[in-house]
Amino acid sequence: MTVVRVVAFGGGHGLSASLRALRRCSPELDLDITAVVTVGDDGGSSGRLRAERGGLPPGDLRQALVALAGDHPATRRSAGLFQHRFAEVPAAGGDAGGPGDGLAGHAVGNLVLCGLMELLGDPVAALEHAGAMLGAVGRVLPMSCEPVGIEARVCGVDPERPDEVRTVTGQHQVAVTTGRVEALRLTPAAPVACPEAVAAIGEADWLIFGPGSWYTSVLPHLLVPELAAAIVASPARRLVTLNLAAEKETLGLSVADHLAALRWYLPKLKVDHVLADSKAVGDPEPVERAAESLGARLVLAPVAVTDGTPRHDPAALGAALVPVLGADR
Amino acid sequence: MTVVRVVAFGGGHGLSASLRALRRCSPELDLDITAVVTVGDDGGSSGRLRAERGGLPPGDLRQALVALAGDHPATRRSAGLFQHRFAEVPAAGGDAGGPGDGLAGHAVGNLVLCGLMELLGDPVAALEHAGAMLGAVGRVLPMSCEPVGIEARVCGVDPERPDEVRTVTGQHQVAVTTGRVEALRLTPAAPVACPEAVAAIGEADWLIFGPGSWYTSVLPHLLVPELAAAIVASPARRLVTLNLAAEKETLGLSVADHLAALRWYLPKLKVDHVLADSKAVGDPEPVERAAESLGARLVLAPVAVTDGTPRHDPAALGAALVPVLGADR
Repeated sequence: MTVVRVVAFGGGHGLSASLRALRRCSPELDLDITAVVTVGDDGGSSGRLRAERGGLPPGDLRQALVALAGDHPATRRSAGLFQHRFAEVPAAGGDAGGPGDGLAGHAVGNLVLCGLMELLGDPVAALEHAGAMLGAVGRVLPMSCEPVGIEARVCGVDPERPDEVRTVTGQHQVAVTTGRVEALRLTPAAPVACPEAVAAIGEADWLIFGPGSWYTSVLPHLLVPELAAAIVASPARRLVTLNLAAEKETLGLSVADHLAALRWYLPKLKVDHVLADSKAVGDPEPVERAAESLGARLVLAPVAVTDGTPRHDPAALGAALVPVLGADR
Repeated sequence: MTVVRVVAFGGGHGLSASLRALRRCSPELDLDITAVVTVGDDGGSSGRLRAERGGLPPGDLRQALVALAGDHPATRRSAGLFQHRFAEVPAAGGDAGGPGDGLAGHAVGNLVLCGLMELLGDPVAALEHAGAMLGAVGRVLPMSCEPVGIEARVCGVDPERPDEVRTVTGQHQVAVTTGRVEALRLTPAAPVACPEAVAAIGEADWLIFGPGSWYTSVLPHLLVPELAAAIVASPARRLVTLNLAAEKETLGLSVADHLAALRWYLPKLKVDHVLADSKAVGDPEPVERAAESLGARLVLAPVAVTDGTPRHDPAALGAALVPVLGADR
């Protein structure tokens, strides 16, 4: 059996679901998994570390590492440690709600990654070491070794002024905007890609986009010129996994609109398969047409968890991926 | 070859030197090493974590783990990560010297240990996991699973009033006092010993005390009633490794006085060997007599680093330990 080299793009929970699904197919398909992760986060623990210490925001990288963590009890426990978040403590003098001790809200893994990046001076080496600490089944790379900013032109941020267009700055603000995102860009506009990510794309058999926050986790990769060029030039087949529901940032966007956005930001992007949840997609016809406009075939499968929340079930998503990734070219 | 079970008591740099020396003897003597570490620290990163989060102060535990870390490049790197200390950053608004982000001054390993103790709710399990992360050659245990306070009655804290006796509270304050320590106690006065430490002492072939800050790292173990009882009852042979120079807290204390202090706090303590640096000891006669009063033979060896600073050289200390620990009873 030949190894199937898969590169999965994204950030946060969506990428985590994708990686957990890939891990489940891994024994059957002999996958070699590389995650390429956005580095635009500026909220929460990651945002504080990035603002105060200047390195890559670690949260999305940590989530990807944990999704790939090994099954041994010791590595499961280390993964639990990485995810453990320090709780709020009363500030000195018992003044609850004060600044606390500065640890509150930080996940231990974010601090470990921040320390490793400072110590080794190289995010790729830091992630490799953290991956070894977790017995990770696969590799996690940042899309760029420098943090990036995300800016969006958003229409109707203020519900009182539905036609006004404003610039919204920062991944967190874009992710929670209730207006309609009209255009997206990175700052700097053309960040340098992580060279290892470019190389992985060139050697991949499959490139997988989504699921995830479309504007803030899935599209940013296409805005990094060297990644975009590598994606277009790669001999790999390409799969897009669609979301199960719109999020704040994509309210009002149809499933077909999600695919159109990919095409808008990378017009040369060709896609082989679009994977969607049969129930979430509703009428498949417009989605089929949107997939066809990217050159792709729509694959419908039940990939959501069964409790009704819009989350991918790693086992179901894995089962749906096996026939796709395992098919001969 | 039978395994030789060694329990080393202490905290901070002294214990670290002892453990590094023991590691070097380990292949030759087939040692099974257990470190039993003081939990009285209330200064620096450990003091802040203890005050704000309430668990054991992690710094001395971290130092002991790192001293025992495996030789594999990956575990050496993890040890480097544990020791990496977050630097000061300018506070928001560029106001250097402000409170910063709360991470400044914390060693990554302190945060990992703090997170593991919170996550697992059991310091012994947390230390076992951290030891596995570092490929540790041996085991690190706290002397008690609850943090303790250290109080000393000190004469002449204020140089203007050389005869005035004051109570100095806190390990850090005791360690840096320039007065003469007359008496030492823990708060609570009789902390519960870590059961695994009591068991290790009962099964040990050797108990090793020192080197280290005498009042704040070496003597506290003798003030934990169950540890004191286990030490007295243990069939193990006992070695005291003396310091190379007086520290602030022991200014004015002769080498013989150090041994007398051990005897004062645990009158039933019998010692088999006292190991001292030939140069540091000066006239060996009073030291020999002090050793004899504990039932011990004085062993002189060159165990200091050669640059003249009062630090033990792990290789030299290891070489001095081999004939002692390897001798038939």
